[in-house]
Amino acid sequence: MLRKAFHADLDQIAQDLVDMTLLAASAMARATTALLDADVTLAESVIDADAEIDRAREDLDERCFGLLARQQPVATELRIVVTAMRMSADIERMGDLARHVAKVARLRYPGSAVPAELRGTILEMGHVAELIVAQAGSVIAARDLDAALTLEREDDAMDDLHRDLFGRVTSPTWSHGTETAVDITLLGRYYERYADHAVSIARRVVFLVTGEYDVEAESSHEDVEDLVREF
Amino acid sequence: MLRKAFHADLDQIAQDLVDMTLLAASAMARATTALLDADVTLAESVIDADAEIDRAREDLDERCFGLLARQQPVATELRIVVTAMRMSADIERMGDLARHVAKVARLRYPGSAVPAELRGTILEMGHVAELIVAQAGSVIAARDLDAALTLEREDDAMDDLHRDLFGRVTSPTWSHGTETAVDITLLGRYYERYADHAVSIARRVVFLVTGEYDVEAESSHEDVEDLVREF
Repeated sequence: MLRKAFHADLDQIAQDLVDMTLLAASAMARATTALLDADVTLAESVIDADAEIDRAREDLDERCFGLLARQQPVATELRIVVTAMRMSADIERMGDLARHVAKVARLRYPGSAVPAELRGTILEMGHVAELIVAQAGSVIAARDLDAALTLEREDDAMDDLHRDLFGRVTSPTWSHGTETAVDITLLGRYYERYADHAVSIARRVVFLVTGEYDVEAESSHEDVEDLVREF
Repeated sequence: MLRKAFHADLDQIAQDLVDMTLLAASAMARATTALLDADVTLAESVIDADAEIDRAREDLDERCFGLLARQQPVATELRIVVTAMRMSADIERMGDLARHVAKVARLRYPGSAVPAELRGTILEMGHVAELIVAQAGSVIAARDLDAALTLEREDDAMDDLHRDLFGRVTSPTWSHGTETAVDITLLGRYYERYADHAVSIARRVVFLVTGEYDVEAESSHEDVEDLVREF
């Protein structure tokens, strides 16, 4: 009966992680809209709502501690609990990155941080961010390894968009000044890191399921940001 | 006897975390030199050496898993083991950030990414990074709460330098072009995030010792990057 309660707790934790991905998804979707529409009210609401994700993480972490202390899990169950704490850290950070995007929107209000010619790229980055966090949620909910693979392809799409963004900012024809270049550089990094954390989540689940963590893939992944700049 | 062995294991883990801070310190010190001296050989060595920090983290995390599974710690000892895994993640990320700095140095070789007028600021950021990681090591080694406070002041110094850097890049008198603005924007962020992770380490130790984690301080800390841009 104790075991049964423990597994119910683990199921609840998985569900709460999925709920956290929904909050992080909503945050980035709304931050992207705030950015492109120069909507300062929406930007403020994203900034304020980040505290909710932070609280969800604290709450989840405390329950994981409680499970470790009371249930003393070993082997796979131990890994599930520790991995849940790591995933909650990933999702909390995704919320921070959405908040950073919203803050750029607020900073440039009533103007827009994004020049007209880059709106399409940023819109697409926001779209990929939505897809990738939804897939991360599916991977957690269903331990779906196919979704984990699809997610890696979405991350490649994000890298391409990031590369495109950098190419435009550093092109000799750039005409929007340094301040906008700084904004776009940081925005590109926020979206890129958001996708990186979704990839981390998927790889943690793959590791739980298969016992194999592709360290080399992670390390090459970490390098994408640098590679983007070496195109 | 088992308890004694467990405490010896915990001491070893603390020592290994301190050793990891030394690797992260060396990485950022050498990356800063590579950047300012346009020394591509040094940059390559920093990039290659990052794998060593990654391996140290994997090794430490596996030992922490082993302790959780075999020793089934509760209460404070449980928190120590879980916190050690979080600190190893912080330090590993600091190594990544040093590698990012080294990659900017390599990308711009034989030129330098840093214009002459900003060399002093970057040099100082490298200096503060060295101080702050050394203090993080002291905090881990000695659970020194005074060092944790000093470390927060160093982080304030890093914020000031970051603010200075942003002010120069976005000033109307900026004359070094967009590519350099992008480089400096990213470099500023790498040093800033490096210091953030050192602050996280210190706060985790303070939490272990006092049982109080200043969530509000963390949240205001997370905002520094945005505040820097709202000066």
